[in-house]
Amino acid sequence: MKVGMLMVFQNFKDQITDTEAYQRDMHIADLAEPLGFDVLGAVEHHFNSYAMAPDGMQFLSYMAGRTKTIELMTGAVILPWWDSPLRVTEKMILLDHLCQGRALFGIGHGLARREYDVFGVDMGEARERFDESAEIIIQGLESGVVEADGKFYKQARTEVRPGPFASFQNRLYSVAMSSHSVPKVAAMGAVMMCFAQKPWEEMTDHFGTYRDLYKEHHNRPAPPPICVDFLCCDESGDRAQELAREHMSNYYVTVMEHYEMASNVFDNVKG
Amino acid sequence: MKVGMLMVFQNFKDQITDTEAYQRDMHIADLAEPLGFDVLGAVEHHFNSYAMAPDGMQFLSYMAGRTKTIELMTGAVILPWWDSPLRVTEKMILLDHLCQGRALFGIGHGLARREYDVFGVDMGEARERFDESAEIIIQGLESGVVEADGKFYKQARTEVRPGPFASFQNRLYSVAMSSHSVPKVAAMGAVMMCFAQKPWEEMTDHFGTYRDLYKEHHNRPAPPPICVDFLCCDESGDRAQELAREHMSNYYVTVMEHYEMASNVFDNVKG
Repeated sequence: MKVGMLMVFQNFKDQITDTEAYQRDMHIADLAEPLGFDVLGAVEHHFNSYAMAPDGMQFLSYMAGRTKTIELMTGAVILPWWDSPLRVTEKMILLDHLCQGRALFGIGHGLARREYDVFGVDMGEARERFDESAEIIIQGLESGVVEADGKFYKQARTEVRPGPFASFQNRLYSVAMSSHSVPKVAAMGAVMMCFAQKPWEEMTDHFGTYRDLYKEHHNRPAPPPICVDFLCCDESGDRAQELAREHMSNYYVTVMEHYEMASNVFDNVKG
Repeated sequence: MKVGMLMVFQNFKDQITDTEAYQRDMHIADLAEPLGFDVLGAVEHHFNSYAMAPDGMQFLSYMAGRTKTIELMTGAVILPWWDSPLRVTEKMILLDHLCQGRALFGIGHGLARREYDVFGVDMGEARERFDESAEIIIQGLESGVVEADGKFYKQARTEVRPGPFASFQNRLYSVAMSSHSVPKVAAMGAVMMCFAQKPWEEMTDHFGTYRDLYKEHHNRPAPPPICVDFLCCDESGDRAQELAREHMSNYYVTVMEHYEMASNVFDNVKG
């Protein structure tokens, strides 16, 4: 099993300045490699202190310059927010050159209406845009050539330079939280990523479906999924539990707010 | 006088692999701070071995992680190639947090039709797009808020997070190669950047105009311009001259090819 650390860049209730929040999280990220973590990840979120991480590929390039061995994972690039699959292809290949092949490409389609609104993208198109964009980018990462003639993205055949550092075939990850996503992630040969949103027992079916479909499509066993959860450490167990309760509840509140989960935002959204 | 090094990432005539070219240039960039250069710059160019530098802000973030004191300059971000001034604002502020205020924001409007074509942007709109985008971004970098209702760019009022690390007011640079550009660069209060395209004597008028107009607009003397030229060093003067002749001629050929300067591309382009 590999263990990673995922950078979120939250400024909880704006209690400190953004500069202080960044300095704090840059310090934490610096600890990942010396503490022995296998992977350092970075989310993508915009316009809010919930997670101040506008370009994970850019932040991971910074960390590429500060590390030697740790794998660097986008967790995730939110494809429908990037107008140009070509840009994402260029940027992932650039990151891979900068870290000499340590990049892991994680993708997702995002869930926060407030971020979709600012980018001027209809959240009802999220899945379709994600599927189309993912296919273009994955092909571009392998071949070094981007070409598209889809519903949302058109691109005349274009060579990306620098060209690929190495194949991303075994370095592809995709968020899969719902019964809609799982079959697609399995079909595209990506490693399934899940966040702790409900008890893991309720995800058992998803993992099973993923394994079955992956085997069916690719004729080999599925790689182990990536599970993202909170971990709270302290020398005292009681104290660790107390800290976990406080911080996880606080974080949960920000999730509820950011995604407007208590509202009816999702009632009319497809997929 | 400050002295800088500008990274271009050329793979001349594809004589080596892109990976080798990147490793070589990453090594050179690493030398800039210990050798005492004041500024490290990075161009933006796409789709060609002429200059394989799709995201200068991302490359400089890598260098932010590897340096402590050197200033990091985009030379330049080609604004009309970025659909979203909001993204550029986010990315420059992110870079500034990562390097703790060492970022210099250089902008330009690009000249290679082949790059405009791939991005699907009419080169005839280059200047107008540049002017509109620059205004949105410069305001966004200062206020942390992006808002636009222009001909090309529309954006509802949006707060960028993380917010600004510090003001970019004295860290703004703009390429000005033509008599059209100079007055605009002076008006926006940017430092004028020029590349060695013709003998410097022929640029004297431009520098004079820049100084006069800057003083007129901002009621203080213009900062010294940035001149980008080739420098070839060797222990033997003769050998340095020989090397310069070889490498500068080779580079000049790639410039002619990349910008299609021997063709009639520019006959019908505005501005």
